[in-house]
Amino acid sequence: MATLKDVAKETGLAVSTVSRVLNSRGYISEETKKSVYDAMKKLNYQPNEVARSLSKQTTNTIGVIVPHIKHPYFAELISHIEAAANHRNYKILLFNSRDRDEKEKEILDMCNRNRVAGIILCSGTVEMNKFEGIHVPLITIERNLEMGTAAVECDNLKGGRMAARHLIEKGCTNLAVISGVRGNYMPADDREIGFMEVCKECGITYQAFKTNEVQYNMGEYHELIEEVLTQNKEVDGIFASSDLIAAQVLQVCSRLKISVPKDLKVVGFDDVLVSSITTPTITTIHQPIKEMAQMAISMLVDASKDKMVASKTTLPVSLVEREST
Amino acid sequence: MATLKDVAKETGLAVSTVSRVLNSRGYISEETKKSVYDAMKKLNYQPNEVARSLSKQTTNTIGVIVPHIKHPYFAELISHIEAAANHRNYKILLFNSRDRDEKEKEILDMCNRNRVAGIILCSGTVEMNKFEGIHVPLITIERNLEMGTAAVECDNLKGGRMAARHLIEKGCTNLAVISGVRGNYMPADDREIGFMEVCKECGITYQAFKTNEVQYNMGEYHELIEEVLTQNKEVDGIFASSDLIAAQVLQVCSRLKISVPKDLKVVGFDDVLVSSITTPTITTIHQPIKEMAQMAISMLVDASKDKMVASKTTLPVSLVEREST
Repeated sequence: MATLKDVAKETGLAVSTVSRVLNSRGYISEETKKSVYDAMKKLNYQPNEVARSLSKQTTNTIGVIVPHIKHPYFAELISHIEAAANHRNYKILLFNSRDRDEKEKEILDMCNRNRVAGIILCSGTVEMNKFEGIHVPLITIERNLEMGTAAVECDNLKGGRMAARHLIEKGCTNLAVISGVRGNYMPADDREIGFMEVCKECGITYQAFKTNEVQYNMGEYHELIEEVLTQNKEVDGIFASSDLIAAQVLQVCSRLKISVPKDLKVVGFDDVLVSSITTPTITTIHQPIKEMAQMAISMLVDASKDKMVASKTTLPVSLVEREST
Repeated sequence: MATLKDVAKETGLAVSTVSRVLNSRGYISEETKKSVYDAMKKLNYQPNEVARSLSKQTTNTIGVIVPHIKHPYFAELISHIEAAANHRNYKILLFNSRDRDEKEKEILDMCNRNRVAGIILCSGTVEMNKFEGIHVPLITIERNLEMGTAAVECDNLKGGRMAARHLIEKGCTNLAVISGVRGNYMPADDREIGFMEVCKECGITYQAFKTNEVQYNMGEYHELIEEVLTQNKEVDGIFASSDLIAAQVLQVCSRLKISVPKDLKVVGFDDVLVSSITTPTITTIHQPIKEMAQMAISMLVDASKDKMVASKTTLPVSLVEREST
């Protein structure tokens, strides 16, 4: 690989002069600059970012930690985080924690050792005390963390309210909500709370069912859904707290010969790819994943420059009506 | 953040002694080692990987380039690459090329500047000459690249053959294949070739339809599928070259009141999440994504140590029968 010395040799200039051009230090004539850039191009010289990072004591790398890369929600979130980071000239180091405590601790140590500029932590359930010893901005997405720099969320409460109101407007009179249960309180828990608020306000019968962590980690909810549908035949509207759960509700309905949306209406949450490739397609609450990713990156960059950032930011959601209602 | 000096101060040892413990250089008594490790733990000292990388002239970072992070196939592939890399103590820098030439060139330069240990390039269509100036192992997954170090593929030809044979065994007599078209030859093109071989061998009527790059980049094939199904009502079996296309075939069938699998049987390719969350679920060709990811990482590590690696490795596929046939 071409080095600074090779560029100097090619141009006939001193190494220190070439270095000054690269770092835009001091006065350099346009002619000299041009000859350096030409030589760099000719030799395909790539400045050593590792050396630069060491002298700057930081990198332009962001650690991104998600519990499950292949979960459709996280896949979409990562995609938008990468795009937003790239736009600001940052790169992402991606880590899958699989929701295991020791794994997250290990990842955070690795982020420290690699002097990342900041960390974006998505969802997950790791104990808070594991996050001691982080000296860079820590932005959370859809997760509460006392020592985080800033939290970015969507309006989960309003999303739950929208889902309930939509099902009621569509004529449902007996509702059920299927959502996750966690040791710690998670922002997503507000989806169920908002849903139940509206049911109470409208005097509509409702029941709440909880998925467990094993089901979440496996992405497998069929058994629970079948139990809910066979034991509660009066239910005519379901709010699932993710599109993945909603897609599985559709599958169980097909097996049980329950016609969607005629006999049962279904609303999901997230608005990721899953909701538009099922049959029928899924009415869902759109989470502004792209904007949340952009906001998280922008806050991380600001915080790393010691600018003040909002400690909590909530972005709006909207209802996307499709075939399942 | 605690430094080497802080550890030295805590233990009362010289900085050079602490450094020797960290780098396992020369004789150090067990007692001294223990006191250094205790102090490191107490102070939460994290060695500076950036400094280490500079002195070693390489990092333990792997650049991973995919065309579309959120595509279900790539999301699953990335997940397995991360796991395999982590297992070997490597981290991944993830890049989304969105199949744009300039973007891939930019990413490769960035990998060079950051002194990655190697690059894994997944699918994509970038011109080969863009890859000059790469001085580290370059492993491709499902992609042909003349100057790549090693290529990992699944047995696409056999997968196509399996799909055709399965549809014929299920009683189909009029087949169609829907697959991607590319400027360059891609390993995935063999799926269609294998499919057509079997149709010819068995004397079965078949037609081949091509998706275009815009459809691939958008993940949107409904219009093409509707055209195929309305203009070829005699077709009773479809092989789609990805589960994403197969899922959309199911949606169009539902709209056109074509019953799957009664009137039309559908086989996909990949065996990613999509194939098991649709209604009906999709019979598909299982691509050993996990093993392909592990193989790619293992080859990259070997090649970076100047061990010889196979220039091309093809892993076996299998048929997963579900409800769509």
